[in-house]
Amino acid sequence: MAKSNPPWTLGQLAELLQGELHGPADLLINGVTSAGSADAESIAFAETDEYREKAEQVPLGALLVGPGMTASVPYIVVPAPRSAFFALLSWCDRPLQTGEGVHPTAQVAASATIEPGASVGPFAVVGEDSVVEAGSVIHAHGFVGDRCRIGAGSVIYPRAVLVQDVILGTRCIIHPGAVIGAEGFGFVWDGKRRIKIPQVGGVTLGDDVEIGANACVDRATAGQTRIANGVKIDNLCQIAHNCEIGEHTVIAGACGITGSVKIGARCVLGGGVGTNDHISICDDVILGGRSGVDRDITEPGAYFGTPARPIGEAMRAFVLIPKLPEIWSRLKKLEKKVGE
Amino acid sequence: MAKSNPPWTLGQLAELLQGELHGPADLLINGVTSAGSADAESIAFAETDEYREKAEQVPLGALLVGPGMTASVPYIVVPAPRSAFFALLSWCDRPLQTGEGVHPTAQVAASATIEPGASVGPFAVVGEDSVVEAGSVIHAHGFVGDRCRIGAGSVIYPRAVLVQDVILGTRCIIHPGAVIGAEGFGFVWDGKRRIKIPQVGGVTLGDDVEIGANACVDRATAGQTRIANGVKIDNLCQIAHNCEIGEHTVIAGACGITGSVKIGARCVLGGGVGTNDHISICDDVILGGRSGVDRDITEPGAYFGTPARPIGEAMRAFVLIPKLPEIWSRLKKLEKKVGE
Amino acid sequence: MAKSNPPWTLGQLAELLQGELHGPADLLINGVTSAGSADAESIAFAETDEYREKAEQVPLGALLVGPGMTASVPYIVVPAPRSAFFALLSWCDRPLQTGEGVHPTAQVAASATIEPGASVGPFAVVGEDSVVEAGSVIHAHGFVGDRCRIGAGSVIYPRAVLVQDVILGTRCIIHPGAVIGAEGFGFVWDGKRRIKIPQVGGVTLGDDVEIGANACVDRATAGQTRIANGVKIDNLCQIAHNCEIGEHTVIAGACGITGSVKIGARCVLGGGVGTNDHISICDDVILGGRSGVDRDITEPGAYFGTPARPIGEAMRAFVLIPKLPEIWSRLKKLEKKVGE
Repeated sequence: MAKSNPPWTLGQLAELLQGELHGPADLLINGVTSAGSADAESIAFAETDEYREKAEQVPLGALLVGPGMTASVPYIVVPAPRSAFFALLSWCDRPLQTGEGVHPTAQVAASATIEPGASVGPFAVVGEDSVVEAGSVIHAHGFVGDRCRIGAGSVIYPRAVLVQDVILGTRCIIHPGAVIGAEGFGFVWDGKRRIKIPQVGGVTLGDDVEIGANACVDRATAGQTRIANGVKIDNLCQIAHNCEIGEHTVIAGACGITGSVKIGARCVLGGGVGTNDHISICDDVILGGRSGVDRDITEPGAYFGTPARPIGEAMRAFVLIPKLPEIWSRLKKLEKKVGE
Repeated sequence: MAKSNPPWTLGQLAELLQGELHGPADLLINGVTSAGSADAESIAFAETDEYREKAEQVPLGALLVGPGMTASVPYIVVPAPRSAFFALLSWCDRPLQTGEGVHPTAQVAASATIEPGASVGPFAVVGEDSVVEAGSVIHAHGFVGDRCRIGAGSVIYPRAVLVQDVILGTRCIIHPGAVIGAEGFGFVWDGKRRIKIPQVGGVTLGDDVEIGANACVDRATAGQTRIANGVKIDNLCQIAHNCEIGEHTVIAGACGITGSVKIGARCVLGGGVGTNDHISICDDVILGGRSGVDRDITEPGAYFGTPARPIGEAMRAFVLIPKLPEIWSRLKKLEKKVGE
Repeated sequence: MAKSNPPWTLGQLAELLQGELHGPADLLINGVTSAGSADAESIAFAETDEYREKAEQVPLGALLVGPGMTASVPYIVVPAPRSAFFALLSWCDRPLQTGEGVHPTAQVAASATIEPGASVGPFAVVGEDSVVEAGSVIHAHGFVGDRCRIGAGSVIYPRAVLVQDVILGTRCIIHPGAVIGAEGFGFVWDGKRRIKIPQVGGVTLGDDVEIGANACVDRATAGQTRIANGVKIDNLCQIAHNCEIGEHTVIAGACGITGSVKIGARCVLGGGVGTNDHISICDDVILGGRSGVDRDITEPGAYFGTPARPIGEAMRAFVLIPKLPEIWSRLKKLEKKVGE
């Protein structure tokens, strides 16, 4: 389907999505919204009756539904409402605007290379020996320090910082306020005070990596902190020095991954997960939100809790925490009875 | 009471605060301090003898005390020491300075509107079709992307970022480093890699909203992430896409509110609270620090713990966690006894 | 030992480090790396056979080992491999470059003082009555607001913000995105809405303090938030208003220190630790990662868990959490047996 910007008529949408129209063809739809969010000029989607009911409770322009479903607002029946909705989302996407070439206020070091087709915004800084490849965008206030490489088609959002020695693959997205390549946190105590261990390594990101807003990825003490292809890291996460994160792993908001931790491929970390230093987590591990991983995980599967354990076991323990007072009183009662 | 900047004499203060002077009228007071913090030229307050004793342990210029109290340093008796102290605080307030109008280095898009009486600082950026209403201040390095509206009398501190499609009510305060309107964290796995779900919605803040330093509020996938009137969000909080936070709710530092969570009005979240996705918390809920909310909360009241439960119940469980070894050994002892 | 930049030959390194060469003297070594990280042109170190084996599993240029050790790659025997490695690290250090004096794009208030030998980078801002002492560096995009003092030899990394009334000792390092001196989070509820308590204090840092990337240290309501000499605070930590942190204390990533908390000297806080408001922690306390401190700690020692308790006790409880289902079922079994 070709991109079609809003506004649409409902009839146009039915045609574009190859769906079945139930409602006025000339109804104007200005955008998309989520089920349950009031917006009389937008279209939402519902795969189930539960979501349809949620959507119908507030003013809504129209609804995308699945085969066999109806709705109390104008609707279009499509084979896969979610996919159809994603198409609409992409048609509504209006990326943050950027100028062509290097903005006159940007500071680009003489030894840096800005490839043709790259865009460098107002007040952006590009340091010594750095390379910004074709089709990349460094938005306003982006800071790219010395010896960095921004792979083709990457986007550095406003105020993201690549301190130094940071290598990005192609099509990476660095969200606002993210800091990549700051010094790792390493000191030795000499008996009187802490002496800084020089942090001289770098950070290497693969292709299609996303780093969330105000997240931090420190550079290695020596060598590289490595984030593999396809990894997605959410806002406010901390990835300490010398970590290695495997391909296509997803790390939700506010996780704290401590120094030299290895996480395998295709893992999914819920929000607020923390780890012990120097542990390894194998491929295909799912960690429930706020889990605390105290040791290596060597078997794929779902884990949860602090300490993190296989999820079935962990959930059985988790629901018993509020029962501790009952356990305690029943134990004392039993002691009394047995004592008698 | 009219604003009266320091320095004051103690006599002046007694008169301004309509209090009873016990000490030299010509003693010079340069500012305010908190009880227990050494500062021989400042005045603190103490509502109770406990705080008075704390204040007297360090060098202090003078003390505001309540009726019937005395002190070993010069003091003023006032009916309500805390309120009198807040008045002094407001007289000491020296807001970060800002120039008039648009600073010559600021980059304002041709289609943007800066209303008269608004101030836009050095290196600030205002994007396409954005509006900065009268009396608002965008401090140095503030970034306001495309299609934003900054309500009258709002303050955008240095280096705050409003990425795009962010609407602020009147008198909002966005602290340094906050990122509002970054893309939500949403992907679908296609069997080989994660495909980004376009995030095309916005963020709507009501009036009198505060967003803390380096906090993040993501824009909605579709529709709006909504923060209602009077909401106060502290530093380093994460508010994910499509959340809705009700009027006058307060969220302390480092909370992680996951996607599509609804929080009611007048709630108070302690620091470090986390939530499960898609849950609802009703009005007038208090959540103790670091609670983990695993399910809907439908009754007003105080809750605590992970999983969060009514506070009485939760505290009884919480204090028993350190007793687990005792429970374990007493259980085994009992088993042995019963086995016999 | 004098600084010697890479590349080195292995023979040169043996001589510089006064070690015993086992391998080709003319082998070219381009840099340093960590044991277990593949890099055929770099040198790593191993104090134990375990680390040596880890290092040998991947391509590696050479290895520093201790007395009596050998290796399957070229190696140098030195008395103290770790110290020798730290020397190499320092020789590899390439600090982010900075120009001399004040960059023409920087905005320095007329009442501010930039001492000779200080460097102020592109787009940096220095506010009214602020002082940047000799040898300090304010990197690009650094924001130093009104009435700040940057002690001699300090480094303000790109995009760090000192909002106002922030005093730094000598040789401080403020990492990218850190926000020091934002308003503390204080409100009073007047029955209808929250009224802001003016936050008019400052922040005072001692000498040799480090504040991590995207960390926040709020200014005091009145008086000072105090961070003593030698304190090191990692990325994404929150230090609320009126906290006092004692000398040489280390706070790892993502800790949340709430309002008016006092932490003593030489404490070590693991990542993700949180505290209750207004508590005190004495000198020489070690807190395990993600501990939740609910009350004063008055005895030096190691603590862990939520609620934080002496570590031996806490670990015994911690490992029993996963055993709760077993405790529960054994208790019920016992009740049944006793009931009979």
